[in-house]
Amino acid sequence: MVPIASLWDEVRELSLGTSATKIERLDSPPSPLHFLRNFVSPNKPCIISNAISHWPALSLWPNHSYLSHSLSNSSVSLHITPHGRADSLVPTSTNAHSLCFASAHVERVPFTLALDRVLTSERGKYVAYLQQQNDCFRTEYAAALGSDCDAHIGWATEALGCLPEAVNLWIGNHLSETSFHKDHYENLYAVVSGQKDFLLLPPTDVHRLYIRNYPAAQYFYSQENGEFRLEMEEPVRYVPWCSVDPYPSPQAEDSERAKFPSYFNGPKPFKCTVKAGEVLYLPSMWFHHVRQSPDEKGCTIAINYWYDMQFDIKYAYFNFLQSIHCGPRLTQTKHETSGSDVSNCNLSDKSCKGALVLVGVESNQDSKDE
Amino acid sequence: MVPIASLWDEVRELSLGTSATKIERLDSPPSPLHFLRNFVSPNKPCIISNAISHWPALSLWPNHSYLSHSLSNSSVSLHITPHGRADSLVPTSTNAHSLCFASAHVERVPFTLALDRVLTSERGKYVAYLQQQNDCFRTEYAAALGSDCDAHIGWATEALGCLPEAVNLWIGNHLSETSFHKDHYENLYAVVSGQKDFLLLPPTDVHRLYIRNYPAAQYFYSQENGEFRLEMEEPVRYVPWCSVDPYPSPQAEDSERAKFPSYFNGPKPFKCTVKAGEVLYLPSMWFHHVRQSPDEKGCTIAINYWYDMQFDIKYAYFNFLQSIHCGPRLTQTKHETSGSDVSNCNLSDKSCKGALVLVGVESNQDSKDE
Repeated sequence: MVPIASLWDEVRELSLGTSATKIERLDSPPSPLHFLRNFVSPNKPCIISNAISHWPALSLWPNHSYLSHSLSNSSVSLHITPHGRADSLVPTSTNAHSLCFASAHVERVPFTLALDRVLTSERGKYVAYLQQQNDCFRTEYAAALGSDCDAHIGWATEALGCLPEAVNLWIGNHLSETSFHKDHYENLYAVVSGQKDFLLLPPTDVHRLYIRNYPAAQYFYSQENGEFRLEMEEPVRYVPWCSVDPYPSPQAEDSERAKFPSYFNGPKPFKCTVKAGEVLYLPSMWFHHVRQSPDEKGCTIAINYWYDMQFDIKYAYFNFLQSIHCGPRLTQTKHETSGSDVSNCNLSDKSCKGALVLVGVESNQDSKDE
Repeated sequence: MVPIASLWDEVRELSLGTSATKIERLDSPPSPLHFLRNFVSPNKPCIISNAISHWPALSLWPNHSYLSHSLSNSSVSLHITPHGRADSLVPTSTNAHSLCFASAHVERVPFTLALDRVLTSERGKYVAYLQQQNDCFRTEYAAALGSDCDAHIGWATEALGCLPEAVNLWIGNHLSETSFHKDHYENLYAVVSGQKDFLLLPPTDVHRLYIRNYPAAQYFYSQENGEFRLEMEEPVRYVPWCSVDPYPSPQAEDSERAKFPSYFNGPKPFKCTVKAGEVLYLPSMWFHHVRQSPDEKGCTIAINYWYDMQFDIKYAYFNFLQSIHCGPRLTQTKHETSGSDVSNCNLSDKSCKGALVLVGVESNQDSKDE
């Protein structure tokens, strides 16, 4: 056992639990103190039932004519991709073996048209997702739908000592998928209709997701010919992103497993399904991958509340952990000997089973001497 | 700047503050939520005024006849050393250059005799300290003095969700000093008379204290001839302890600074004085060194409440950080090249300014392969 793998195990044994299917469940909203003490402070997720039972949204929003009627004068942000994967790694248009970080085509369209696009989505044609992670609920929907749900989650607001920084609405279908990433927020994720399937990994497991820099690109969708164009950003901009796709196609599975052994052979990610009426507390800095199943009308509807996180000792530990590199981004130090194969090692390289990581430990004075 | 030194700086810049003399001060007891959110969760100390103003102890305990009268039938634990440093590193009796971890001579004596020993302490003769870190207040004193103070700190109990695991009383003089160490408890430290001077270092700074294994020893004091005997434990038992003495004698200063450059040249420890009537929240896993100044009767009196800590992600991060070794305990891996000087390095060795640390990063499968 080596230190980083011990960390992955220890955080599970001490705090999170060792069963990947057991996220703690609460039958009713916790008190602010209980929530802060047992979940926020230890950075531990939970699912809360009966926390939003009083929301009219639960019965109103699955009804598309209610939504269309209420939002008949609203235009909303619509994300369109060929396959349902936005903010995700896809092959560049010129080289199938080279990946880029692709953002969706985004348009602002009348709500009724947007909803129709979600419902008529088809892989290979287009996949539409009503979402925008910039407080879109409050800016685009709240005037019409604000009285159907709470503006914030009361016990979370009291625990965290602030109102949400952003509230986002998500209306999509089973084709949309969100790739592994983390947010610098405490997240309360309420499912209104359909269900969401999460894979969760704690921040301690950062190395298992093989975060690499990928060039940014964007989809452009032409409504006239129904075609997508994937354009690399100019000048090139690199986005650090998780390399792991947890659900590779059967053809790609062997190569993905070989490329990302720490993910596929390490402790399983926590897996949970959040059903309509339930709220997931997704702690800050946790990596999450999201898929969804629609309600009988074909939609998954959710709303999430982003609260400011504390940049405290946990965050400092995380940054230190993440700074321990392996592979091409290895920290080089003057003590590295020429005979070492360290600088050539790569976690995905079979020749680098016991990949070395170099961390300089120096006194401040020593640093100044140099 | 190298990663571990960045961690020392970052936790200060993000959360603790960069002024070593500025521990946050509260003018009145915090609400449980405020205490949990702003101090316990981020693992951040604070000093609270007016939290124990209602204790009769504040006026009663400085009065020695009150104490002697109330405790006239009690016997209590008394720690005796030649110099006031118990649970501390001292030269072994056979070799002045070899250090051991020495515990005090402990006896259970009538309170009045014990207090007299504290007041007649003299360096070179003996230094007595009324203390025992095993819940001594509740077991030895509470029957007589329990109504003079609170059995627990109400807002802390509510925040932490449990009653104290141990409550300890400390009656000493200016000669007693507690060497750098950490406790696996959340600690509320209330000063009743005199004052306590703390040096505090966050758990992120663990490498700066040069924790090494020292053989355990114990003082035995003979009342007949007034002499101490320092006996090594048999069979030998090693205790991991902080090597740094923050206040070396003028003669030893140069060599101490050379041996422990990360301590003496890194960010200064937080320094605070807790006066009679004030409470220090000393977060779990923080390293602390304590000296004291007596009241006009010659005593410092304090009582501390140890609450269970959460063994959560912070603790897992700490263990990982601590597992990164340098020097003799360096983790060796098969990738270490023979040309490297890493295995000979030592933080106190001038030739090892940029001491390397090796951390194996392996997938579980890889580990099994070997």
